[in-house]
Amino acid sequence: MRSLKKIGEFGLIGTIKKSAHIEKEVIKGIGDDTAVLPLDKKRNLLLTTDMLVEGVHFSVKENRKLVGRKALAVSISDIAAMGGVPKFAVVSIGIPNSACERGIKDIYEGLSRIAKEFGVSVVGGDTVQSKKLVINVALTGESGKKDIVLRSGAKPDDVVFVTGALGQSLKTKKHLKFIPRLAHAQYLVKCFKPSAMIDISDGLSSDLAHVLNESKVGAVIDEKAIPRAKGATVAQALSDGEDFELVFTLPKKEAEFFRRQKKFKVYEIGIIVQKKKGFMLRDSKGKLNKIIRKGYGHF
Amino acid sequence: MRSLKKIGEFGLIGTIKKSAHIEKEVIKGIGDDTAVLPLDKKRNLLLTTDMLVEGVHFSVKENRKLVGRKALAVSISDIAAMGGVPKFAVVSIGIPNSACERGIKDIYEGLSRIAKEFGVSVVGGDTVQSKKLVINVALTGESGKKDIVLRSGAKPDDVVFVTGALGQSLKTKKHLKFIPRLAHAQYLVKCFKPSAMIDISDGLSSDLAHVLNESKVGAVIDEKAIPRAKGATVAQALSDGEDFELVFTLPKKEAEFFRRQKKFKVYEIGIIVQKKKGFMLRDSKGKLNKIIRKGYGHF
Repeated sequence: MRSLKKIGEFGLIGTIKKSAHIEKEVIKGIGDDTAVLPLDKKRNLLLTTDMLVEGVHFSVKENRKLVGRKALAVSISDIAAMGGVPKFAVVSIGIPNSACERGIKDIYEGLSRIAKEFGVSVVGGDTVQSKKLVINVALTGESGKKDIVLRSGAKPDDVVFVTGALGQSLKTKKHLKFIPRLAHAQYLVKCFKPSAMIDISDGLSSDLAHVLNESKVGAVIDEKAIPRAKGATVAQALSDGEDFELVFTLPKKEAEFFRRQKKFKVYEIGIIVQKKKGFMLRDSKGKLNKIIRKGYGHF
Repeated sequence: MRSLKKIGEFGLIGTIKKSAHIEKEVIKGIGDDTAVLPLDKKRNLLLTTDMLVEGVHFSVKENRKLVGRKALAVSISDIAAMGGVPKFAVVSIGIPNSACERGIKDIYEGLSRIAKEFGVSVVGGDTVQSKKLVINVALTGESGKKDIVLRSGAKPDDVVFVTGALGQSLKTKKHLKFIPRLAHAQYLVKCFKPSAMIDISDGLSSDLAHVLNESKVGAVIDEKAIPRAKGATVAQALSDGEDFELVFTLPKKEAEFFRRQKKFKVYEIGIIVQKKKGFMLRDSKGKLNKIIRKGYGHF
């Protein structure tokens, strides 16, 4: 769920958040990777949704199986980033009159394949006519009440990690082929205590900024430590969207244990600081520069 | 959830149903008003989704508050038709570059107002760029395990009822202003034992045909008994879509009790018969004519 941040120019998020009706039972509504809702004494229900539009999130000529795959993968990534496991999906699809049967079947095939890989059941949907191809997935998940990781828990001295190389995801087609970091996230929430986590959909600087804002802290990121995809510049690793890696923070003590783990390759990129110190990048000469958010925006 | 039936010309439903990955725990997947999923010992989780596209489900000039209202109302209607109560919604919206802030705010206001009326919490969403305005709502619900009403439970001799007048919903704007029949449905499942239920989104003949197909039965509908909206012909009452009334069946004994209830005005329109007798309309002279499904289709 890329939340409602994309509509920045309208300044609508605040309005929508204010106007959105919320009953008391809601644990976390608008403003994180997924909503967190009551399920039973031990578990929370997670709910997220993502819309992909032809010409915006994928090109007309794109492999339809990969498009279907991506439509579900982005929501699995959101559930993972909350510390949950994905469960049930409903798929809406708006189809142009000119669409070929084959292409639509391929979308469902790609979607169904990744559903199977991640144990997601596709339980319904809606199929309508549309000018451009539009796919919307809504996905539920579950998490143990103790496993939930919000964006708002980072504290000064926490260590910042990222799960993989960043930048150029459109060029490399990683934006279509990425593996949602569910295994990483489940390992983290079961064996460590991450204080905050988010998936990188809009770009490291944008998405980490959400964590900093929600947690009311700052951060110093080490330029040299940012893992870059082959051929990606530092600026691209910071700002390109759709890598769908996880960025997370661990309290100092937890980080000490975590550094010794061999299960997954992760990258330590910086440290959380007090809010007043801002969101800074330490360059190769040790100089601190202010990070300006340049993540992908829709408007 | 208008399921995947709209894509009739592609003959895709079968393919999608076959290709859709489903885990064993799913109680009811594709093919009813909503999916039915395990929640706890006493309750089921319901999940549905509906997509509205500008120029297909509403016109460019339509009142935006009513458009937002409809986007959620159609999903509330689906939850009601399963015997459940609506709980949590996520809203995706695809917005053209040319859209005015005011119009978008109005959509959310209309949506939020009906959310409040029906106790639905709007807990998240996605906001993206799109050529035409597209709104997708995914809605969860809950039902007592005993309250679930599928399309597949109608039996010969069951009596067929409908909750309100049908036809001309586009002309009268009922398709935007209808009240989801949650109160009717909850009264029905708490006090009677409906054997099957569906909401009328595609037209009485189309939607009742889904019940007949799923239940493997036929029906005889009395032409004179079909409640018609002012100015609507019998053909329109049978075929016009988007009335969002409920059509439901009650076993003969239950129907006897139900006829005496004074809480809601409902209309008895016919009787379930054996499958081999088909889906028939009894005209004013008592003659039986085969009903041909003419509900709204997208393709």
